[in-house]
Amino acid sequence: MEIGFIGLGNMGLPMAKNLLSAGHRLIVFNRTKEKAAGFQDASVQIAESPGEVASMAKIVLTMLADDNALRSVVYERGLNQAPPFLETLPQGGVHVSMSTVSVSLAKELAAVHALRGQAFVSAPVFGRPDAAATKKLGVVVAGEGTLIETLRPVFEALGHTTFVVGQEPYLANLFKIGGNFLIMGAIEALSEAFALVKKNGGDPEAFLKVVNAALFHSPLYENYGGMVLHERFEPSGFRLELGLKDVKLALEASEGARVPLPLGGLVKDRFLMALAFGLGQKDWSALGLMPLIEAGIKKP
Amino acid sequence: MEIGFIGLGNMGLPMAKNLLSAGHRLIVFNRTKEKAAGFQDASVQIAESPGEVASMAKIVLTMLADDNALRSVVYERGLNQAPPFLETLPQGGVHVSMSTVSVSLAKELAAVHALRGQAFVSAPVFGRPDAAATKKLGVVVAGEGTLIETLRPVFEALGHTTFVVGQEPYLANLFKIGGNFLIMGAIEALSEAFALVKKNGGDPEAFLKVVNAALFHSPLYENYGGMVLHERFEPSGFRLELGLKDVKLALEASEGARVPLPLGGLVKDRFLMALAFGLGQKDWSALGLMPLIEAGIKKP
Amino acid sequence: MEIGFIGLGNMGLPMAKNLLSAGHRLIVFNRTKEKAAGFQDASVQIAESPGEVASMAKIVLTMLADDNALRSVVYERGLNQAPPFLETLPQGGVHVSMSTVSVSLAKELAAVHALRGQAFVSAPVFGRPDAAATKKLGVVVAGEGTLIETLRPVFEALGHTTFVVGQEPYLANLFKIGGNFLIMGAIEALSEAFALVKKNGGDPEAFLKVVNAALFHSPLYENYGGMVLHERFEPSGFRLELGLKDVKLALEASEGARVPLPLGGLVKDRFLMALAFGLGQKDWSALGLMPLIEAGIKKP
Amino acid sequence: MEIGFIGLGNMGLPMAKNLLSAGHRLIVFNRTKEKAAGFQDASVQIAESPGEVASMAKIVLTMLADDNALRSVVYERGLNQAPPFLETLPQGGVHVSMSTVSVSLAKELAAVHALRGQAFVSAPVFGRPDAAATKKLGVVVAGEGTLIETLRPVFEALGHTTFVVGQEPYLANLFKIGGNFLIMGAIEALSEAFALVKKNGGDPEAFLKVVNAALFHSPLYENYGGMVLHERFEPSGFRLELGLKDVKLALEASEGARVPLPLGGLVKDRFLMALAFGLGQKDWSALGLMPLIEAGIKKP
Repeated sequence: MEIGFIGLGNMGLPMAKNLLSAGHRLIVFNRTKEKAAGFQDASVQIAESPGEVASMAKIVLTMLADDNALRSVVYERGLNQAPPFLETLPQGGVHVSMSTVSVSLAKELAAVHALRGQAFVSAPVFGRPDAAATKKLGVVVAGEGTLIETLRPVFEALGHTTFVVGQEPYLANLFKIGGNFLIMGAIEALSEAFALVKKNGGDPEAFLKVVNAALFHSPLYENYGGMVLHERFEPSGFRLELGLKDVKLALEASEGARVPLPLGGLVKDRFLMALAFGLGQKDWSALGLMPLIEAGIKKP
Repeated sequence: MEIGFIGLGNMGLPMAKNLLSAGHRLIVFNRTKEKAAGFQDASVQIAESPGEVASMAKIVLTMLADDNALRSVVYERGLNQAPPFLETLPQGGVHVSMSTVSVSLAKELAAVHALRGQAFVSAPVFGRPDAAATKKLGVVVAGEGTLIETLRPVFEALGHTTFVVGQEPYLANLFKIGGNFLIMGAIEALSEAFALVKKNGGDPEAFLKVVNAALFHSPLYENYGGMVLHERFEPSGFRLELGLKDVKLALEASEGARVPLPLGGLVKDRFLMALAFGLGQKDWSALGLMPLIEAGIKKP
Repeated sequence: MEIGFIGLGNMGLPMAKNLLSAGHRLIVFNRTKEKAAGFQDASVQIAESPGEVASMAKIVLTMLADDNALRSVVYERGLNQAPPFLETLPQGGVHVSMSTVSVSLAKELAAVHALRGQAFVSAPVFGRPDAAATKKLGVVVAGEGTLIETLRPVFEALGHTTFVVGQEPYLANLFKIGGNFLIMGAIEALSEAFALVKKNGGDPEAFLKVVNAALFHSPLYENYGGMVLHERFEPSGFRLELGLKDVKLALEASEGARVPLPLGGLVKDRFLMALAFGLGQKDWSALGLMPLIEAGIKKP
Repeated sequence: MEIGFIGLGNMGLPMAKNLLSAGHRLIVFNRTKEKAAGFQDASVQIAESPGEVASMAKIVLTMLADDNALRSVVYERGLNQAPPFLETLPQGGVHVSMSTVSVSLAKELAAVHALRGQAFVSAPVFGRPDAAATKKLGVVVAGEGTLIETLRPVFEALGHTTFVVGQEPYLANLFKIGGNFLIMGAIEALSEAFALVKKNGGDPEAFLKVVNAALFHSPLYENYGGMVLHERFEPSGFRLELGLKDVKLALEASEGARVPLPLGGLVKDRFLMALAFGLGQKDWSALGLMPLIEAGIKKP
């Protein structure tokens, strides 16, 4: 297929490469041009604006950092007043949004695209840059059913599993946001337990092994627990300041729906503390240092 | 081996049966006699008091509900002023405490037994009554090394894995308490996420499947998540009022060591709310209803 | 003076009347026209749009519900495409913003007015509609010094005390937001204490009297404590759904500055729970019911 | 009157002096003898044990640090196996407990004294050592009515106001515990607000003045707010480690009654953090540093 791809960051770049490997042709755009220029491949065209991408491909994937970046791509004019994505995407064209953005933005984009006879599919992914590179992403997809079937080869070129979760696109965002919330909750729980064990004279690493072998059997617990214990926060697979963004997405969705979310509030405060301590560029798992700092085990 | 066994409750009874099946002879005691009387087996003797058990067996396992029950077994006289366990256990005798009790009680018992030339081993277990019945407990053991090797056949008759975690007995209690804390944290996180998903129009059951398949791969998440979603709170494998006891054990250990434990405080408040709503006899996973009640999804 | 006044709600209407009583002439606008029409007074002109107000008065007070309402007044065109406030306010004109809005909006308005040679003063008020009617508001003012002196008679017509807190307008908003945060914190603390006292068999009303006489000596504690205990939530001086807005203003300011605010998170969850229970139109002090509901004392 | 007085610490010593000034004769005991020895006064007798005090006075006031200290005074034998207080207090004798102890201990002491035909009155006090010295304590009293009238001159020699709160002694402890909980809640709220204001560029001291003048009008807010802002934590009127004790008394009472107390949990974590940072000997208001540390404003 011919696929537009906008956003060649830590995640987008390896994803785009996997699409190429799978035989798709790409029209790409990235705000900082150097990254796009790196593609030395006959199957890749480099566009000058998001709008140009949308005028050249009926299917456009976007993979951007946050709501603001995605809004800007969809609504704003490019250099030389090039028309925006929303206007150039043809009738029947499909915008596949793979960014972790808000439930409310997903609803809004579903509406504005529909008004123009365009389709909108949400397909955020679980997984970090190494998983993107090795095609091990979990792709969470929501949108119109036949469309998703058409897109399935695209998703399968990007991840190991495609989870179809509903007709309304925002549901995929909701699941992605909820999933990230659960990861943060697990990091918080593990880190409090590490502080408890350590300051009572136990070995948190042995503790992690035992509880995972006896209870959780979860590679995620092992992985994130190990990152906290060994302070493997660099290179940052997912920056802490983006983690703050994600817990705020959960809190925003909870506020809209009138759902108290005390664990969400706790985790948000951990992120703020970590940012106050200058850790914004570290991996988000560094939030697990906060319980250790409060317990006097680690110096800030 | 000849083994004393004190405490034939939900957990103790199936454990004692497994010891019998493994060919051990038992001297048992239970506060309410009917349970002990149920053993129709030539290899079982029924004692009249904890002290009598300790006078007849060099190895005594205790499996009791809480600190008070264990203290009472160790220190108090029986009917007719029968001498207490602590006095009748012979020099060189071993008290194997399998209850979920406090770090401080474990330290105290290690000290008082040592004063009398007796040995003390902590061996609390992960797993619920069904796991006890099917020998699927995880046994967390701490104590003197050669002693643990001697006891290994006992532990192997009770569970699928024996985790040796240190020389000082209290470490096993610390790990057990920390593990239970993590389970409660997971229930809290899952339940908040369920409320978030549900009230935003998503299906929490589909959500649980997706996040577990994409992220956690944890049978524990599947199991506890399912219990909350389907409100499978009866029969109660582990009563909610005992869950309160366990989070208080974590908080007590955190207070002693000066470790803030905000997730612990949150979970404790969930238990108190559930008890205020009359749910103390339900399975402890019923704490997962609290976020749903606060969000107006469930009636209290 | 000739004063423009935009926003004749629960607070704005009595404030405007006090300005009239003090001898000022008014040009008023309200989105729902009936309220403006109620002014049968030779000194009052009724404008058709915010922009018309700004074209007729050099000093314009705005008293609106939230950021969105204030943004809309400042930036949007009126009926028949009447030019917006920001364009019609003359050079040297003064926008006095008395609404409880965000720190970030105050900064933005200071900037956009300055660009046009207009002045911007923030002057949010402490006090409820009854205090507005009886000129007992506390007016918190920040802005350029000589300007504030010029405006002093206006503020003195509205409240009993004018607190000048700085040159940068947003500081007044910050103080107002921080003050409301403290009120919510006091309601939360009082309500938890009431639940604690009541369920332990004590009389919360006697408790309130004793602790206020012995410790706080605060009419605010007496007033809000009494509202919670006697459930005086109607008529609503300040609706609970606006309280949610205010705690979100505090949280937004805390997030921007990287300040963990756990009490803010707790109070926000109380508001969400209250809204989930259908209490959004009650007085915001109804958040004090939440601890009583969680303790099983009150039915939701 | 002839009055026994046990416990001559920071609070007890100035209280005992005020009783002397009011013309009462005292029989005193203190665990560390030097403090008692300091009384060079013909009206003071120094006893060798709590039991001796109780054998010499029909009315005995106790003013001790915590539950353990009070239990020890009541139940334990003195040097040379001198009989304990509980045995030597004559029938009709009165134990007036002025310490801040638990609701459960107050209930227990009411019961054990009643069994022996002795009376028990709870009379904990609000106020710090300077208030004790200047007779400005608030005395919260609960017990049998005629007895309280008899004791009134004693209470009036100690404080400026006597609050009679019920017949059951534990109610006075409950009110005292609830009052201290409210103070901690106010310190937490103020300190979070200070961090919010400061890191957004405002002056917390000006903020405190404005909100107290506009809203709270509370000398306690002024006093504690000022202590936090100026870090007046020495000399310690009330040590932080005793503050931990007090919030634990509130939490214990809340757990017994099944009352979630999230603000209590938050404050307890602040105390633990402060203790982990080595601040246990500072004034308890130092808990107000924790929000500033978490926000990166203060170094730990």
